Amino acid sequence: MPADQSTDRLITETTFYVRYYETDQMGIVHHSNYIRWMEEGRSDYMRRRGVNYAEVEKHGHALAVTDVHVRYYAPAHYGERVTVRTWVESLRSRALTFGYEIIEAESARRLVTGEVQLMLIDRAGRVVTFPVEMQTALLGREA
Amino acid sequence: MPADQSTDRLITETTFYVRYYETDQMGIVHHSNYIRWMEEGRSDYMRRRGVNYAEVEKHGHALAVTDVHVRYYAPAHYGERVTVRTWVESLRSRALTFGYEIIEAESARRLVTGEVQLMLIDRAGRVVTFPVEMQTALLGREA
Amino acid sequence: MPADQSTDRLITETTFYVRYYETDQMGIVHHSNYIRWMEEGRSDYMRRRGVNYAEVEKHGHALAVTDVHVRYYAPAHYGERVTVRTWVESLRSRALTFGYEIIEAESARRLVTGEVQLMLIDRAGRVVTFPVEMQTALLGREA
Amino acid sequence: MPADQSTDRLITETTFYVRYYETDQMGIVHHSNYIRWMEEGRSDYMRRRGVNYAEVEKHGHALAVTDVHVRYYAPAHYGERVTVRTWVESLRSRALTFGYEIIEAESARRLVTGEVQLMLIDRAGRVVTFPVEMQTALLGREA
Repeated sequence: MPADQSTDRLITETTFYVRYYETDQMGIVHHSNYIRWMEEGRSDYMRRRGVNYAEVEKHGHALAVTDVHVRYYAPAHYGERVTVRTWVESLRSRALTFGYEIIEAESARRLVTGEVQLMLIDRAGRVVTFPVEMQTALLGREA
Repeated sequence: MPADQSTDRLITETTFYVRYYETDQMGIVHHSNYIRWMEEGRSDYMRRRGVNYAEVEKHGHALAVTDVHVRYYAPAHYGERVTVRTWVESLRSRALTFGYEIIEAESARRLVTGEVQLMLIDRAGRVVTFPVEMQTALLGREA
Repeated sequence: MPADQSTDRLITETTFYVRYYETDQMGIVHHSNYIRWMEEGRSDYMRRRGVNYAEVEKHGHALAVTDVHVRYYAPAHYGERVTVRTWVESLRSRALTFGYEIIEAESARRLVTGEVQLMLIDRAGRVVTFPVEMQTALLGREA
Repeated sequence: MPADQSTDRLITETTFYVRYYETDQMGIVHHSNYIRWMEEGRSDYMRRRGVNYAEVEKHGHALAVTDVHVRYYAPAHYGERVTVRTWVESLRSRALTFGYEIIEAESARRLVTGEVQLMLIDRAGRVVTFPVEMQTALLGREA
């Protein structure tokens, strides 16, 4: 089904081994690290669509996080590989929301879901609208 | 007013300097670190009410995070002191929610608000009800 | 030259993108993170030689760090890929030292070198000698 | 003895509770975090001598780490308070070395010792000599 295929292409999957330093004394990944993994997923999502975030910052713009919501279903452990699934949940002129699902790579067990909302700001901290080319790239397929 | 005084006593304030390693290249505190600060506030809240969390874990119980929601209003910077204000938002037999407000200590400017929901689990990962003495301590005043 | 080939095989290279949260407000990777990258290199080194460190811990042993020495030549930046080169510098019955070189992947520019010394301990924290099979695996080639 | 008193005054002690997120699944503080604690000690050392590091950076200078050496004697645990003892080990025109001892606050048990070497650089990354007023402040007593 073409419609499904198309949807699939818009989700970026980023897979890596859990790092030992990400665990805590409960023997699981510390809950704050899933938010860092979502950032890794976001970096990967943009990179694969040709949005060079290092360049965005050099031009005086930055993506500032305005809201984070995470639900925890099961913990990740050292020795496991995890996959961060990243997509654009919504994009308006002044607010961009990424959606996430993090799964244990081998079993596909759902660990965490979440949303991170961002806005684009200039060097003075003022909110600016997303440039059209950035909007197009963000909503497009992997290059 | 007694009612207000009483309410005031139930909020624990934890104040510290922003650490350099908590900043990122945007020149502000990385958004994941506010979640770690909330954990610091929670540790302090429990410690001041005689709930020794290290002891809780030695007895085979652990507080597992099930939901985190954070709203970002303004960023913290290196060189500033911040205050984490922590309180119990709700406590049911199997779900404990802490509420948070993080402010810049000198100006009292609001930086972040949030809620963190936890459940108590045993070594097998099963949800257990909060012991009455823990409930009493959590809802009580600073010792 | 067989001798050189052999030596080359004993270095494990682990390559990844710098993560945004690893930067600090100096606009570079925070100096503490290179030590975490060395741990990632070590995990990868062991994994590729069939030493399952998660299993080692389940059997009641742990690798405890006793000494870290790092020299910083040039900083890594967000947007760059880095390669951690990991090898066994020395292995005695009660002390294992890994050597490291971290380079910027594209230019091969040297960023950091270092050594991390570890010992094997049991659940009581006592130093134990490295099992022969672990020694053999650690000194062997990638599987 | 006045000479000893004088030496004692030049060591800054920074005490705080171990944070839960600083532990790893070995049940102890992750070895990379002691390097972050040394940075906290350094920030505190400078702050108490009137060296405002945030201001130093605003004037286009930065302290870049060039060498870190840490020896680990015993681990810190969640629930403990630790004290970072910080002093200037040596100060030359282009190299500043801080010495550290980290102890468990209640028992005074030695956990870690270390040295961190820094140089002062300008915005172009060039090494500059330490301004005389900074040298004087760094070698002076707490204000």
